[in-house]
Amino acid sequence: MPDALQCFDLPSPFPMKRGGALNGARLAYETWGVLNAARDNAIFILTGLSPGAHAASNSGDPSPGWWEEMLGPGKPIDTNRWFVICANSLGSCKGSTGPASIDPASGKVYKLDFPELALEDVANASHALVAHLGIDRLACLIGNSMGGMSALGYLVLHPGSARTHVSISTAPQAQPFAIAIRSLQREAIRLDPNWREGDYDDEHYPEAGMSIARKLGVITYRSAMEWVGRFARIRLDPEAREEEPFGAEFAVESYLVGHARKFVRSFDPNCYLYLSRASDWFDVAEYGNGSVALGLTRVRVERALVIGVSTDILFPLSQQQEIADGLRATGAGVEFVPLDSPQGHDAFLVDIPRFGAAIARFLARL
Amino acid sequence: MPDALQCFDLPSPFPMKRGGALNGARLAYETWGVLNAARDNAIFILTGLSPGAHAASNSGDPSPGWWEEMLGPGKPIDTNRWFVICANSLGSCKGSTGPASIDPASGKVYKLDFPELALEDVANASHALVAHLGIDRLACLIGNSMGGMSALGYLVLHPGSARTHVSISTAPQAQPFAIAIRSLQREAIRLDPNWREGDYDDEHYPEAGMSIARKLGVITYRSAMEWVGRFARIRLDPEAREEEPFGAEFAVESYLVGHARKFVRSFDPNCYLYLSRASDWFDVAEYGNGSVALGLTRVRVERALVIGVSTDILFPLSQQQEIADGLRATGAGVEFVPLDSPQGHDAFLVDIPRFGAAIARFLARL
Repeated sequence: MPDALQCFDLPSPFPMKRGGALNGARLAYETWGVLNAARDNAIFILTGLSPGAHAASNSGDPSPGWWEEMLGPGKPIDTNRWFVICANSLGSCKGSTGPASIDPASGKVYKLDFPELALEDVANASHALVAHLGIDRLACLIGNSMGGMSALGYLVLHPGSARTHVSISTAPQAQPFAIAIRSLQREAIRLDPNWREGDYDDEHYPEAGMSIARKLGVITYRSAMEWVGRFARIRLDPEAREEEPFGAEFAVESYLVGHARKFVRSFDPNCYLYLSRASDWFDVAEYGNGSVALGLTRVRVERALVIGVSTDILFPLSQQQEIADGLRATGAGVEFVPLDSPQGHDAFLVDIPRFGAAIARFLARL
Repeated sequence: MPDALQCFDLPSPFPMKRGGALNGARLAYETWGVLNAARDNAIFILTGLSPGAHAASNSGDPSPGWWEEMLGPGKPIDTNRWFVICANSLGSCKGSTGPASIDPASGKVYKLDFPELALEDVANASHALVAHLGIDRLACLIGNSMGGMSALGYLVLHPGSARTHVSISTAPQAQPFAIAIRSLQREAIRLDPNWREGDYDDEHYPEAGMSIARKLGVITYRSAMEWVGRFARIRLDPEAREEEPFGAEFAVESYLVGHARKFVRSFDPNCYLYLSRASDWFDVAEYGNGSVALGLTRVRVERALVIGVSTDILFPLSQQQEIADGLRATGAGVEFVPLDSPQGHDAFLVDIPRFGAAIARFLARL
């Protein structure tokens, strides 16, 4: 099996939920393990807003992936048994087509001419990739954070396309607190004079706006409780402090600076805006006459595992409970696992002992 | 008694905790009720970051104050019985001296030449005002939010200066989550090209930065739970939406816009930066060899009421518990009232039924 980043050409035109269509669009993806003859051992992972398809190291790319400890031979998602696929979301900038890609119609970067993006488009593109790989039905569809919303979209739009589902720290619809946070992140980017209505370049780049957006993200991805133990009131060494007035003085400030620095130039601002807004728009209730519970009745899975974290302020436990209840009402066997991980929303990335155990146990029983 | 905004000239030079001194500085304050002959019925209120001295309407200014329902004849803080004083914090811009005031040495606005501000300076200036009013000992010192920190500074630095204390939704030291939020608010202002290292004017004003700072404030002052009930996924009428790409679409976004609009030009950005950083610096542990509990042992009050809210993400209930425990260890009679108000940190401003009842009960027993 090829393991490095691969590309799948989406059928053209690829219709978008909110209007318009993409031509010549593609999805970047990676795989781990081997698809068996019955083609019934495939697991698809839908990602959060920023990660690419490189969920874990493989022969084509030995660098660690964003879920390195979760995925691989003998790991909770055991690639000795499962054929695992992870795609970069449609609309993102890690190999898949999005606002930072060339529009074949104009020969120029789409920027804000990219059609409005919905998470259902992310779902449909992923479903097309799965079909292309010759898989009628996934053994399991896994989605975390934004990817959990995309996964619900996938299951609602393609009932029966997955035998089981793992839903992690996500939402059946965007709630106002999360909308407010994302709206403010978008505002920080849009107000940066270098954003120029999406028409920035490498020299005029909305660095300040992206930095604020990322820092606000990191603040809401972790938890106050974790930070008390981790940073307390530790101060930076005087020589590590910024000279400017009101510059960083506490360790927690420098931690945010570090996160922002890594992100700002590695993720396209317009793609960020599109995916962020797509998250706000997502609402399973659209498929249930205004009711999330009714919308979720469209899902057809045999079993589901729903995991959430008590310290998650962005995707609160109550929303995980809502997903679990909704799926249970379809007759699926649902395991709801509320975890007390201290790391907040990001716990699924770092609290592998808790998350890995729950996922491994669930997959072992398939 | 005069009731409108009054001014108290602080003794010159007025030494500042972190170095330097103010000359010709003043505090703006208002009063309600009558100081009795024994001068033992005075209550002093220390405010949060943004409010001025106008806590409630009075004959000099009949407009509603920021704590209108809490304070007045027959209200929880009953001005038929109590002589109530509320001052605008030193360093603020609502009549008291701060970075937006004229520096008598230069004849120009201080801006960043204002000396570094600590909440202990706010406390000391307030203490000087109380002395000036001929009050040796307050019947009660009340502080909420940032004012609660200033109040702890007041009580630690001036032991025995208040018979009782009401501590509301505050912190004995700034924790990393709150520091991170405030640091990001300051960054939004500082990165606004119109901030110009504090040298803005009415025409070049850091409006965008102030708007982001305020919106982030409002997001952290309320609670996700309240917003689910209040805004859900209600959308703005199409004609109320902004035309620009990624403009506001949901009711919660327009709510934030409204709050920002009211604040941006009514609060001086440099004053905001100074008070925000003073909040980060505050740490009762400085007075207890690195221990909050030990620092609080310096307080000498007969009784205290400590109120917090379970939905407050900025000043979590655990910090209110820490204050209550610390004051109890001094031998004070301490009532700890954790409330389930849905409104988060701001609950003390709006959940008057719960807060008012607790405060009225406490004051009635003095």
